[in-house]
Amino acid sequence: MIDPIPVLKEIVKEGKTKIVLLVIDGVGGLPVNGKTELERADIPELDKLARESSCGLIEPVFPGLTPGSGPGHLALFGYHPIKYNIGRGILEALGVDLEVKGGDVTARGNFCTVEGDVVVDRRAGRIPTEKNRELIERLKSKIERIEDVEVILKSGREHRFVLLLRGPGLSDRVTDTDPHKEKERVLSCRATAPEGEKTARVVNEFLSRVREILKNEKPANFVLLRGFSGMPDIPLFPDTYKIKACGIATYPMYRGLARLVGMEVYPAGETPQDLVHTLRELWQRYDYFYLHVKKTDSYGEDGNFDGKVHMLEEVDRIIPEILSLSPDVFAVTGDHSTPALMRSHSWHPVPFILHSGFALPDDARAFTERECAKGILGRFPALYVTSLLLAHAGRLDKFGA
Amino acid sequence: MIDPIPVLKEIVKEGKTKIVLLVIDGVGGLPVNGKTELERADIPELDKLARESSCGLIEPVFPGLTPGSGPGHLALFGYHPIKYNIGRGILEALGVDLEVKGGDVTARGNFCTVEGDVVVDRRAGRIPTEKNRELIERLKSKIERIEDVEVILKSGREHRFVLLLRGPGLSDRVTDTDPHKEKERVLSCRATAPEGEKTARVVNEFLSRVREILKNEKPANFVLLRGFSGMPDIPLFPDTYKIKACGIATYPMYRGLARLVGMEVYPAGETPQDLVHTLRELWQRYDYFYLHVKKTDSYGEDGNFDGKVHMLEEVDRIIPEILSLSPDVFAVTGDHSTPALMRSHSWHPVPFILHSGFALPDDARAFTERECAKGILGRFPALYVTSLLLAHAGRLDKFGA
Repeated sequence: MIDPIPVLKEIVKEGKTKIVLLVIDGVGGLPVNGKTELERADIPELDKLARESSCGLIEPVFPGLTPGSGPGHLALFGYHPIKYNIGRGILEALGVDLEVKGGDVTARGNFCTVEGDVVVDRRAGRIPTEKNRELIERLKSKIERIEDVEVILKSGREHRFVLLLRGPGLSDRVTDTDPHKEKERVLSCRATAPEGEKTARVVNEFLSRVREILKNEKPANFVLLRGFSGMPDIPLFPDTYKIKACGIATYPMYRGLARLVGMEVYPAGETPQDLVHTLRELWQRYDYFYLHVKKTDSYGEDGNFDGKVHMLEEVDRIIPEILSLSPDVFAVTGDHSTPALMRSHSWHPVPFILHSGFALPDDARAFTERECAKGILGRFPALYVTSLLLAHAGRLDKFGA
Repeated sequence: MIDPIPVLKEIVKEGKTKIVLLVIDGVGGLPVNGKTELERADIPELDKLARESSCGLIEPVFPGLTPGSGPGHLALFGYHPIKYNIGRGILEALGVDLEVKGGDVTARGNFCTVEGDVVVDRRAGRIPTEKNRELIERLKSKIERIEDVEVILKSGREHRFVLLLRGPGLSDRVTDTDPHKEKERVLSCRATAPEGEKTARVVNEFLSRVREILKNEKPANFVLLRGFSGMPDIPLFPDTYKIKACGIATYPMYRGLARLVGMEVYPAGETPQDLVHTLRELWQRYDYFYLHVKKTDSYGEDGNFDGKVHMLEEVDRIIPEILSLSPDVFAVTGDHSTPALMRSHSWHPVPFILHSGFALPDDARAFTERECAKGILGRFPALYVTSLLLAHAGRLDKFGA
């Protein structure tokens, strides 16, 4: 796969055209009683849109690779999903709505139970979120700085939290303290390169203070840290593509991803109707709109086939409203598949609709996996969705003479 | 995309089989009143060929990228279109039948009209080609060398010409003198790297002499230069693929491209009939024939849907004649799409027919965008057309044991 960004940077031009990318998270599925979620759903508007558009299937990364939300979305935004591999610590921090700045280092944390130095429960019995918040408050009040480094903590769900270090001379070139197995010893943080030495020292001092503060707690008497990562050096979407871009999303991870690539972010509310309401309000202010629908993925992960079908039907109702805004280019797809049958993300390619004045309608009769497979766009890497959208929006010059 | 050349070089073998690649420039289109140019055209021979062949759609570079003729053709010849990005000056020089050598630097030139330093007409009112030739003769007689650099000039059509500098220590790391807009000042040539300094100095001296020579001319009283480029280091087609290759093309750009990759070049005449006449004459002397039909692209660029349709119908008539020569492999495609609807090159994938004794016929019933989309070759990068042709011609060994 050619990284499109160096090429596109040379030929992208400003314009007044408007692009809407509707990402229905986990939209692709697998058959239960012969039909996939999309095949079961009553989605006349999406089916009509498919008939009037160019269709295809997008490959999130390469065949067989199941993407997390990070690579799934980055590919859709035109970032090579292997080259721009964003650290898990960063994604977690963005996911709990922590603002991350250049030079910051983040890590995923777990409360755990230790006996001496040995981890007996990596998740401290999955303590309730309430307890987590109480412990984090206590740690925050007692550890504000180490050396010249600000220590920022934020609770996640159950036993999870995020550690963010902010100060000069930090680096993510350090090792996990999580042994990733129970009945093994907690590890010290070690630098894997000279620039990680200060960070390792600060992390080890942090851990020794935590040890002291939590020593009488049960079961959460210590913490494990993993996935240290810094803010990636990623070209920003609005600069790279010369377009005013916003993301409309409710869930922290997706808001974080949109913010990471430089989009301005607005809440999507709880329903597809809320999403379209926000879109309408922002219509004059931006030219690129990333819209994110989460619940299809959540139902898929719960194995709730009917819930996912119902959610697709709700999304179907906002299609005419989006079209009524007359976007120059309107694409509908997902960041990956989440078949209810599998209760998880999967590697299956994702149906894709591209609607524009320059899109050749094809044989796809509906917005389903099997119909989009007949589309003229064929099966192509999600990495090229952005170049395709920009081309259809008249925002790319010719490449070469 | 994997660069195929390093792999192919190891496994290509000589043979006696013959390959014909018919490039119908800008062949792909978009619907007007429901049908594309190919769908509207009465092309029974091409349709029959499609039914008896393997079909597909080729992607010139990557989805959304509209190629110029350079990258479009280089990809068809098996050259990675990003890696081998040929400068416009070189293409123009080749296009006016100038021989370019390693170390030469070329640029595209325009006669223009200036008032003082300000460009008032970048094309000097598109002066007649005759006038251009007269002015170029005058410049040639008065500027033969600058320092130790030979100055070679050649007229193109209307206001266009090519400058070629030949001498030691030249480089294309210099800037355009063309401001690319009217009502702006002519620019000096500047080096963008130390190795460009001599070239910039020579170019600026050239311009000051031209200024003096043309000062009383109207409207062509100065020149603009752009796209400085040197000869690329490109592996030659006949050596790389161990095949005697020729190009049959009338228009300079395509003759130049064929010559750039080391093909011998013959004129195609004005009509498809002339093309096939030349093919027949050369049949015994070569094993690979690149045939170029230009006018489909020209009609597309003019927005002349019916003209393009008519031209496709003319091309259709030569198909039986090409088949009567019994090529082992016969492919029909284009270097890019040029929908009359858009009046320009576009990024849309291009229909592709591959006819050989080892091609599996498929569901494509006609040579159109939408029928070829059903073909067994699917949608694949133009970069792999050459490896596919060589394979079907029995000219590639197995890769690996």
